[in-house]
Amino acid sequence: MIQPVYDFRSDNVAGVAPELMEALQAANLGTAAPYGDDDYTRAMQRRFSELFERPVTVFPMSTGTGANGVALAALASAYGSVLCHPTAHINVYECGAPELFTGAKLVGVGGGDFKVGEKELAAALASAGFGNPTRVQPFALNLTQPTDFGTLYSLQELRTLSELAHARGLRVHMDGARFANAVAALGCSAAELTWRCGVDLLSLGATKNGALNAEALVVFDEALAARIPYLMKRGGQVLSKARFVSAQLERYFADELWLRRAQAANRNAAGLAERLASLPGVELVAPVQVNMIFLRLPQRALAALRSGPFAFYELGEDIRLVCRDDQEPEGMSRLYDCVRAALGVRS
Amino acid sequence: MIQPVYDFRSDNVAGVAPELMEALQAANLGTAAPYGDDDYTRAMQRRFSELFERPVTVFPMSTGTGANGVALAALASAYGSVLCHPTAHINVYECGAPELFTGAKLVGVGGGDFKVGEKELAAALASAGFGNPTRVQPFALNLTQPTDFGTLYSLQELRTLSELAHARGLRVHMDGARFANAVAALGCSAAELTWRCGVDLLSLGATKNGALNAEALVVFDEALAARIPYLMKRGGQVLSKARFVSAQLERYFADELWLRRAQAANRNAAGLAERLASLPGVELVAPVQVNMIFLRLPQRALAALRSGPFAFYELGEDIRLVCRDDQEPEGMSRLYDCVRAALGVRS
Amino acid sequence: MIQPVYDFRSDNVAGVAPELMEALQAANLGTAAPYGDDDYTRAMQRRFSELFERPVTVFPMSTGTGANGVALAALASAYGSVLCHPTAHINVYECGAPELFTGAKLVGVGGGDFKVGEKELAAALASAGFGNPTRVQPFALNLTQPTDFGTLYSLQELRTLSELAHARGLRVHMDGARFANAVAALGCSAAELTWRCGVDLLSLGATKNGALNAEALVVFDEALAARIPYLMKRGGQVLSKARFVSAQLERYFADELWLRRAQAANRNAAGLAERLASLPGVELVAPVQVNMIFLRLPQRALAALRSGPFAFYELGEDIRLVCRDDQEPEGMSRLYDCVRAALGVRS
Amino acid sequence: MIQPVYDFRSDNVAGVAPELMEALQAANLGTAAPYGDDDYTRAMQRRFSELFERPVTVFPMSTGTGANGVALAALASAYGSVLCHPTAHINVYECGAPELFTGAKLVGVGGGDFKVGEKELAAALASAGFGNPTRVQPFALNLTQPTDFGTLYSLQELRTLSELAHARGLRVHMDGARFANAVAALGCSAAELTWRCGVDLLSLGATKNGALNAEALVVFDEALAARIPYLMKRGGQVLSKARFVSAQLERYFADELWLRRAQAANRNAAGLAERLASLPGVELVAPVQVNMIFLRLPQRALAALRSGPFAFYELGEDIRLVCRDDQEPEGMSRLYDCVRAALGVRS
Repeated sequence: MIQPVYDFRSDNVAGVAPELMEALQAANLGTAAPYGDDDYTRAMQRRFSELFERPVTVFPMSTGTGANGVALAALASAYGSVLCHPTAHINVYECGAPELFTGAKLVGVGGGDFKVGEKELAAALASAGFGNPTRVQPFALNLTQPTDFGTLYSLQELRTLSELAHARGLRVHMDGARFANAVAALGCSAAELTWRCGVDLLSLGATKNGALNAEALVVFDEALAARIPYLMKRGGQVLSKARFVSAQLERYFADELWLRRAQAANRNAAGLAERLASLPGVELVAPVQVNMIFLRLPQRALAALRSGPFAFYELGEDIRLVCRDDQEPEGMSRLYDCVRAALGVRS
Repeated sequence: MIQPVYDFRSDNVAGVAPELMEALQAANLGTAAPYGDDDYTRAMQRRFSELFERPVTVFPMSTGTGANGVALAALASAYGSVLCHPTAHINVYECGAPELFTGAKLVGVGGGDFKVGEKELAAALASAGFGNPTRVQPFALNLTQPTDFGTLYSLQELRTLSELAHARGLRVHMDGARFANAVAALGCSAAELTWRCGVDLLSLGATKNGALNAEALVVFDEALAARIPYLMKRGGQVLSKARFVSAQLERYFADELWLRRAQAANRNAAGLAERLASLPGVELVAPVQVNMIFLRLPQRALAALRSGPFAFYELGEDIRLVCRDDQEPEGMSRLYDCVRAALGVRS
Repeated sequence: MIQPVYDFRSDNVAGVAPELMEALQAANLGTAAPYGDDDYTRAMQRRFSELFERPVTVFPMSTGTGANGVALAALASAYGSVLCHPTAHINVYECGAPELFTGAKLVGVGGGDFKVGEKELAAALASAGFGNPTRVQPFALNLTQPTDFGTLYSLQELRTLSELAHARGLRVHMDGARFANAVAALGCSAAELTWRCGVDLLSLGATKNGALNAEALVVFDEALAARIPYLMKRGGQVLSKARFVSAQLERYFADELWLRRAQAANRNAAGLAERLASLPGVELVAPVQVNMIFLRLPQRALAALRSGPFAFYELGEDIRLVCRDDQEPEGMSRLYDCVRAALGVRS
Repeated sequence: MIQPVYDFRSDNVAGVAPELMEALQAANLGTAAPYGDDDYTRAMQRRFSELFERPVTVFPMSTGTGANGVALAALASAYGSVLCHPTAHINVYECGAPELFTGAKLVGVGGGDFKVGEKELAAALASAGFGNPTRVQPFALNLTQPTDFGTLYSLQELRTLSELAHARGLRVHMDGARFANAVAALGCSAAELTWRCGVDLLSLGATKNGALNAEALVVFDEALAARIPYLMKRGGQVLSKARFVSAQLERYFADELWLRRAQAANRNAAGLAERLASLPGVELVAPVQVNMIFLRLPQRALAALRSGPFAFYELGEDIRLVCRDDQEPEGMSRLYDCVRAALGVRS
């Protein structure tokens, strides 16, 4: 018998939610105009406008990197820069895609808990050299919500950072690859998390929460929307049969499906993290606010995990555990037990 | 009762083949590593190696423009050019994506029937200014097979053009958005149509032949493969849940499904074109070799079509009719009758 | 004794006009702010405003390719195209610089005598696909005046082409590497040749007419000027000691120096061309309107020239002869005699 | 009488050294092939090979930003990064030119005294994610020598950093805008400072030390040289009358001129800095190793300087004073006295 592997690598190792698979099937009927000019996409558009409590323009895509690249390109000037946290996904894990799509420079702005800090942003803007032609000119602030380390900006933080950015003419882009997890954790509405806090453009990911390569670029400023179809095409991001992404996204937000899944994933991580953190020598690298846990473990615990039936990523000395909504309780228990035992703690 | 619309706009207005929908379902089981490092992708890789009768490296993507962009980027030098027919898809309908992905210049090389001509290619290479630093240096020849006007390069033409290109150090990229239709029409093997004719890289589309946003970049020269994952990421082309594209592609080539569908589509177009071309004043703009028909019609016939229950694209003075494998016979008959009647020809 | 070589390769093989060398010396006094924020540059600015009979903004640079790149970048949109003649300098001899500076695609528009034709431009605009996101969107029309084949747009042609371009939202860029030769040949004013004909931006070259790497980007629309210092810096085009270019340009237009030199160069070419064209079998490839002669010669005449004391460029089967203002009369006579004798014509 | 302004803004506010002006005049004789294919450029090439004690390939240009951009472009891969100090000139003061020329990302690597540190470089390389396609792949290490804050890498530091870089396949680019000042300060040879320490490519500036917009790209690895003419053209960096830059550079290194000037400038700065630093409350922001002084002054001293006959730049709270070889002794004394008096120190 093959030993089961409990998979903590990422939430995108999961399959597709049955409800979304059904939506795919339902959309497979008759012909439809390609490239997003179809009724499924229009229905999705309406659904998003309901969700966000205002008219929004939405573009279906299949990768988050593509959505981020197009979003930033829609804002870019030819000699510009995007301010972001040094650990931002766009700065570290997209192999230069934002630079390719925009021609811009990414400039790191520090801050605690892997978030752009208010003071740090103010200082960066003060020394950015606006109007000095030897300096790149900032045009956008990127906020990854949740961050790549699973931390969250509060609504107040988002508002303050957006105001600072807007005051200097920058637009605000939110990278919401785990948007549902953020909404679930903060207990706010989608509108509150975004445009009501000053967000101009949102990359909203559904893939990590049960969709089949379904991402959306949500535009809160209509004036920005006109250029996006061109930028998508130029970036190879226009889907021939866009209806199959749109139909998923429409269904995703048709009821509480998206929230329930994200809440479950967050809950799984919170429970596991709490137990692990109670062990001696186990250190949380970042506060656990959504479904991601970053740990530093004593060597013997790490060694035990490596030889156990667990799949997870290591980042330098740390390990990352990501929980899905359907993370096996047995897997979580066994992982905890494995670390506990290695550390010589009695159960 | 709503009058049905017979849809001749494109083959990508179709839904997804039932067999491929089943493959999607079957792949929705358990967790899998993201970004193409999964068993479905490995199985697809093996399937392609069988099909092409040699080891190939295959990368699953969701758009043809993305696959083309990455393919050309894998060949690009920093001050280079891609030779292609002026009407090539990459030159006209990708909104500058090849230029973005490569940084290169696209240089048109003429030829009859919308194909790069042998003489024209020889002349372009002779006057390209190799070694002259004021001139961009050609690094690739793009051949769209079938062309955007539905014409086909013969195997002999492909061989000759590839030899000319290789002799000057260029690599050969085939844009095969309708690859199955080309193989079906030429009655050759996939191997014969590609690397046996000198093709180095192939963008192979399955979407227009029944897949759900499933395209593949097929690499026949292993040395080129190493850079492609980076170029894909940088272009926002790496799918989080790649298995759902790979599973389709594996199934697509598992039996004659792909060929049968393409043959049917080609046959539909051939039959319709033959009937239409027999009418007085109806002119074929290009020979009908796959599933696309380009017509110039007398004004009264065009007017009749426009007011009939037909959907199709107009390109300047011409119209384009594309047939799917499941094009409704009734729709084809009614379209023919509509033109015939408008031209005053008795049935 | 070494046989002298009569140099017909280009007008940029010449040295520097004594008047401009003196201006360089005169500017070598005291300190001055770098990067163009100096009194010499301001004086040059005033001189250009006089010359063009209106306020203009002028940026000193050292290469024409740089000036062209920056000019087009100032107009560029992210998914745009520049319309130009297929033989335009920017399309053939700048190794992709315009594409690098702009990210845009260059799209060829045909026409006789190496000039963009009115009908051809109208057709290109009609089929450009404005508003279609699969197509690059034209933002500029480039007019090379004189063309790389030494032909000239008439003022009427410039007006018509500019109107067509402006009507579709394109801006007009004139590449005037041999601006003085054009003004001299047309007998018009600098204003008449440019903004009065609808030109929005001018790359004005002085180097080919006696300056030491002195070029200017002249902006007729103030709204465009603000972005240019950034685009120059980003393109490595901002000169540390800009005053030494500005001082030359100020002197260049301080009196008739620029015109006298250009008139002399044009006259030399006209005389030589007339004599050569009178010989049997000698064919002018393009009308000789400035200081450039393009000839197709019988093989024996070509062979004779090659073995004579002449330096010139060959372009495929043609040869190019460019005359400077101080072209040696003896050299021109000997060149004519060489061809004449080879063709067996008595003197 | 106008009060004289003592100019401490930069060394590029200076004019042109008389010896170099003479070299310009001497080069203004007869015709010469354009674009660097001339005898002056060949002589310069030989002179540099002598200076560097080995064959080198040298390309004359007119801006340091251009030389840096081309140098890095010669090394670039399509999904690459350049490691440099966060304060590096290429990272801060070139308005994105390196990114434009290379398509690469600049990644900051910290270290004391504005220099890349050995430990920091080792850590950056260890966590760079070589072989991970989500991460940009480093291809070059940029070392600014002297740094923009006037500090110097020792030969030992250069060797160590180069070895670390080479061991991971990176090439080493030195930005030597003030190359002469560095050689003068370190008392080493040009060879010792560069290729003997592992430098692969050098941007060598002469403009800040008395030349008229004369910079050179010096290539120590012949295999890199072949692509550079194309990259220069594409970047608008090829000078039409290159001989006038080459003639200056040849003369610059023909005797000790370059060193004498740099030594004098360094000496001026050292003397002034020593006196200023002796005053209470005056803080040197960086060690003064070449001709640049960075100071933090008490407010009253700063106010006094601002209202005195002095020109200088302010960077946030600091001021920068740069000394030329011919900095007026009176100006330096008056500046010192001004600060001293403001601080209430008796002379």
